[in-house]
Amino acid sequence: MQHFASDNYAGICPEALDALIAANNSGHEPAYGDDSWTNQVCDRLRDLFQTDCEVFFVFNGTAANSLALASLCQSYHSVICHDLAHIETDECGGPEFFSGGSKLLTAPGIGGKLTPDAIESIITRRADIHYPKPKVVTLTQSTEVGTVYSVEEVRAIAAIAKRRHLKVHMDGARFANAVAALDVHPSEITWRAGVDVLCFGGTKNGLPVGEAVVFFDRALADDFAYRLKQAGQLASKMRFISAPWLGLLDHDVWLRNARHANAMARLLETRLQEIPGVSIMFPSESNAVFAQLPPHAAKTMRARGWKFYEFIGAGGCRLMCAWDTQPETVERFAADVRETCVA
Amino acid sequence: MQHFASDNYAGICPEALDALIAANNSGHEPAYGDDSWTNQVCDRLRDLFQTDCEVFFVFNGTAANSLALASLCQSYHSVICHDLAHIETDECGGPEFFSGGSKLLTAPGIGGKLTPDAIESIITRRADIHYPKPKVVTLTQSTEVGTVYSVEEVRAIAAIAKRRHLKVHMDGARFANAVAALDVHPSEITWRAGVDVLCFGGTKNGLPVGEAVVFFDRALADDFAYRLKQAGQLASKMRFISAPWLGLLDHDVWLRNARHANAMARLLETRLQEIPGVSIMFPSESNAVFAQLPPHAAKTMRARGWKFYEFIGAGGCRLMCAWDTQPETVERFAADVRETCVA
Amino acid sequence: MQHFASDNYAGICPEALDALIAANNSGHEPAYGDDSWTNQVCDRLRDLFQTDCEVFFVFNGTAANSLALASLCQSYHSVICHDLAHIETDECGGPEFFSGGSKLLTAPGIGGKLTPDAIESIITRRADIHYPKPKVVTLTQSTEVGTVYSVEEVRAIAAIAKRRHLKVHMDGARFANAVAALDVHPSEITWRAGVDVLCFGGTKNGLPVGEAVVFFDRALADDFAYRLKQAGQLASKMRFISAPWLGLLDHDVWLRNARHANAMARLLETRLQEIPGVSIMFPSESNAVFAQLPPHAAKTMRARGWKFYEFIGAGGCRLMCAWDTQPETVERFAADVRETCVA
Amino acid sequence: MQHFASDNYAGICPEALDALIAANNSGHEPAYGDDSWTNQVCDRLRDLFQTDCEVFFVFNGTAANSLALASLCQSYHSVICHDLAHIETDECGGPEFFSGGSKLLTAPGIGGKLTPDAIESIITRRADIHYPKPKVVTLTQSTEVGTVYSVEEVRAIAAIAKRRHLKVHMDGARFANAVAALDVHPSEITWRAGVDVLCFGGTKNGLPVGEAVVFFDRALADDFAYRLKQAGQLASKMRFISAPWLGLLDHDVWLRNARHANAMARLLETRLQEIPGVSIMFPSESNAVFAQLPPHAAKTMRARGWKFYEFIGAGGCRLMCAWDTQPETVERFAADVRETCVA
Repeated sequence: MQHFASDNYAGICPEALDALIAANNSGHEPAYGDDSWTNQVCDRLRDLFQTDCEVFFVFNGTAANSLALASLCQSYHSVICHDLAHIETDECGGPEFFSGGSKLLTAPGIGGKLTPDAIESIITRRADIHYPKPKVVTLTQSTEVGTVYSVEEVRAIAAIAKRRHLKVHMDGARFANAVAALDVHPSEITWRAGVDVLCFGGTKNGLPVGEAVVFFDRALADDFAYRLKQAGQLASKMRFISAPWLGLLDHDVWLRNARHANAMARLLETRLQEIPGVSIMFPSESNAVFAQLPPHAAKTMRARGWKFYEFIGAGGCRLMCAWDTQPETVERFAADVRETCVA
Repeated sequence: MQHFASDNYAGICPEALDALIAANNSGHEPAYGDDSWTNQVCDRLRDLFQTDCEVFFVFNGTAANSLALASLCQSYHSVICHDLAHIETDECGGPEFFSGGSKLLTAPGIGGKLTPDAIESIITRRADIHYPKPKVVTLTQSTEVGTVYSVEEVRAIAAIAKRRHLKVHMDGARFANAVAALDVHPSEITWRAGVDVLCFGGTKNGLPVGEAVVFFDRALADDFAYRLKQAGQLASKMRFISAPWLGLLDHDVWLRNARHANAMARLLETRLQEIPGVSIMFPSESNAVFAQLPPHAAKTMRARGWKFYEFIGAGGCRLMCAWDTQPETVERFAADVRETCVA
Repeated sequence: MQHFASDNYAGICPEALDALIAANNSGHEPAYGDDSWTNQVCDRLRDLFQTDCEVFFVFNGTAANSLALASLCQSYHSVICHDLAHIETDECGGPEFFSGGSKLLTAPGIGGKLTPDAIESIITRRADIHYPKPKVVTLTQSTEVGTVYSVEEVRAIAAIAKRRHLKVHMDGARFANAVAALDVHPSEITWRAGVDVLCFGGTKNGLPVGEAVVFFDRALADDFAYRLKQAGQLASKMRFISAPWLGLLDHDVWLRNARHANAMARLLETRLQEIPGVSIMFPSESNAVFAQLPPHAAKTMRARGWKFYEFIGAGGCRLMCAWDTQPETVERFAADVRETCVA
Repeated sequence: MQHFASDNYAGICPEALDALIAANNSGHEPAYGDDSWTNQVCDRLRDLFQTDCEVFFVFNGTAANSLALASLCQSYHSVICHDLAHIETDECGGPEFFSGGSKLLTAPGIGGKLTPDAIESIITRRADIHYPKPKVVTLTQSTEVGTVYSVEEVRAIAAIAKRRHLKVHMDGARFANAVAALDVHPSEITWRAGVDVLCFGGTKNGLPVGEAVVFFDRALADDFAYRLKQAGQLASKMRFISAPWLGLLDHDVWLRNARHANAMARLLETRLQEIPGVSIMFPSESNAVFAQLPPHAAKTMRARGWKFYEFIGAGGCRLMCAWDTQPETVERFAADVRETCVA
């Protein structure tokens, strides 16, 4: 049975699995990334972004974001993020741990998005050594509530960051969904807009495990390989982390997967907003739908076996679509919501 | 072409791959370990060890050992290990990082093995607050030079540790090879002998990625799940880390794999010791052979395309056999060595 | 010229200086706290608190609070504090650094005080491993805005903490002022009320440098001396940190100093509230007065050479009185304010 | 009674105490180093070193060295030091803690001194990401066994460090004794020789508490003030840490103190080497004498009330002279040794 709890409930997409199996058929391969598969994927990502970026593979998003941020600041620096940012709400202090104590400074913002003004306000709030000095701004693209920063929004934020000598990090756990939603070249919302480091999510896009950390400013990647090794993020049989990316990159499967998930969210949003008593909490721009159900309805849905996360208060529902979410699942879910709402 | 550089040059064994594929066929599954596969594997490991241990899965050995050690000591404590221990020589400061600064206190020991006397001597060397207080003894089983601690040796070390209020950790990156070599029940060299925590290596035994951290003393595992999450070691699609273990555990494939690797090392040792000019550096008790070749021979072998690690000085060779090492590869390698030595 | 910027603008009180000089006259003394002065002060503090507490001396408040908190939690745990707490607003990430990443979870509260309900609400908000587990509640006594927790308030907070298995830490940078204000025995607002660890401030009470960390639960102090040493908080010539405490403890100079500072704040508050256009922001219960001046008045006061901190917005003034603040200074300051307000 | 256990058994020298008292007579002063005393001392140290260095004050040597090293490397880097270096043997893992896990790589060396060859050998030993990358060389001047690096020796070490892109740190807990011993300008063995950062010891030279961290390369001091604050090393009443330095710097009291201590060590060495059965372990070039006594003699000396540290094995004695060590004490000690040796 499919669910809307998270896009990480889905499995491995066929193309990624095929690539993994192919990588296993090549017999012995050098470890720790010195294999032909890993080199190939790094080059492919450079091609994709149309720039000579530095690419690393890590096991998950906690590590990708925490280590990327740690490489951009020291323990007495701080990171500006949205108050709904995953690194603030769901990493159990991972960024603070890997950086040795950097503080996350949170800002509010409509639709889960930071604004230049909010960032500026945090940067200028304090200028004394009793408070950690801001060094990084981090954006989540697509955001934690399913919205997407436009090219202009990313540019405006990066501009203020540069002016204030901060680095720009992008948490792209659902980067593919944002690119698909905006229908722009991936470079347009990353390095061409001023992003220094991107954590490019693979897991939610159809991989078994693994994210890519992409440094557009290669100087920032100095000794990052040592950092990964020390932090327990260097896979010995690296090809099984890297090769599946080939499955995603060949024939733009990563975009196809993202577009499908986005489309399913669109369908779900359409169906839900037709139901009396249901309201949509945020404009669904990527693969998430946040819907306010009558509390009893949410409860009944769970009792019927549907899994999904609560978002701020009874009845608030986070509904995620995955690369494999079937239209039938969406329709069945929507029909069930209608039934419970009407009941 | 197969190599003897490391047992992590080998790929995924068929049974583990089948289990991974099977886990992918079940559709959506809860994330972060709340899936049926992970629970099942934990239970299977409890059965295997015949005790109600607490089991966690992490991505690699650096993380397994570093986090297990961090859970046993504070930053101002120290860990006693052999001076050839992997955590000392090949983790880029991982244990120091994850513990926030715990010092590794190294001891020499014949054949890569710690002795009760060496441990006692380190524990009693200092008793002032200017030096980190020893809190853990860690053994590598099988050792970094291919030897194996006997049941009695593990027991003796654990006994001195307990008397001195230290915990006992076992780095079991090649635990399977040790069990196969000793032909004992896995509990005999772990909890029944006094080991508190085992890092049970899966990668070198045929998995794509992943190790198990097994706490025999469940009290030591308190909040360890939080530690893993914060440290970037909690897989979202956990089943792809856990399910492959089923492939190893069913029908004792893990032991079969280990026995095969050990047998290949035996064969390699036999062949090499027949060659004039070659000497065996350590008794080959598991899946490693350490051989001293004439320096020119080692060089020539590499020129012929063979990959293997140097061990202490020119001509010292570390030769690892894997679950898939073929007898033909061993014979061809030995023939090549003979040729280069005679030449 | 005296100021109201901070009670740490004041120097060393005569009794503390005399004790420091006396400690210097004893010739050679063992280092690192094995001297007669340090032992004596520890005993005196045990007498003062009427319990067999464990006492340590550190150099400043950042270290006292950060190390005490670090000893109460692991990196993946969290600390509940008021959103105005000094550890949150003015330690540059010290608590996060010393704990290796523990998160501070802030709660609002009238008059700078936490409430049992606010604490309970934070504790119960999350119960998953993606968010750091609350392990400590910390109170500042007297608070950052000059108010004081009553005995009942401390008890109520400690009770909820115990019920939820959290430890209770008290940031007592101005503990003396709180005791003086409440006129209770120091044990009544510490261990008898349920406080586990107190950071007892000496610097603001008249010492040149140094705070005491007092563990009422001795088990929590296990190996704390190692922690201090590693963290750069073990003085070699310890007697110069500890002996001055004798000057404070003899004849209750610490209380006399605190009572004087409190009285000066009372006087300042009285004078200020008589001035049209000035409003008192918090009830002045200890040695601080927070007053809202007309913005131009605050500016003019600074132009006249007075130093004081801004508190939330133009015209908000934090005014601290010290052990040596003279009534004449208060009167002159108040007269100046009146003049600038009337002008 | 005076002892030879450590130069930190001595108290505050009169000139430093006078300066401290003078700083207390100035009434209120801005906190955290914004006072006139601190600025003055920084300028005086710049004058002393004849360069525009950046100066910070910390509470003790553990912090000075650990924080200076942490500012020169990341957690996955390493620091090359002598195997007798204080940071390795007596800081309870302080450098590892403050750096978040940097490893100390120790080298042997005659007379407690590193050599360019030993450093080169460590740097070139490994070049893979499985071992922390060397980033700093640290020298102790004077060394832990009382010897002193010549100007040429410091230069040679700094030269190899620069060639290999490592920074050079000097642990100068007894820097004054080295300058006095060599009779050179302090710049000659620091920045003119290639040292990047010096930890200039004040405590053992006659201060109550405190060391200076001197960055000759100002770029390395970027945001170091934040680091100090976060690490609990920013004194609020800073003048009591800084002002006593004036007592040392005026009229070269620091050199006079050091010369006296060195002379007392010379006297002690002369006396001891005349005693049959006593041998000098290292050439006494600064304020330390390391003497091998017959084990029973060392024991008897302790029974007579003399305090001193054991150095490697029974009978090995570390004997430190301080700024206030009296010739009579030396003579009495020597006479006692003679008596116990003859007995």
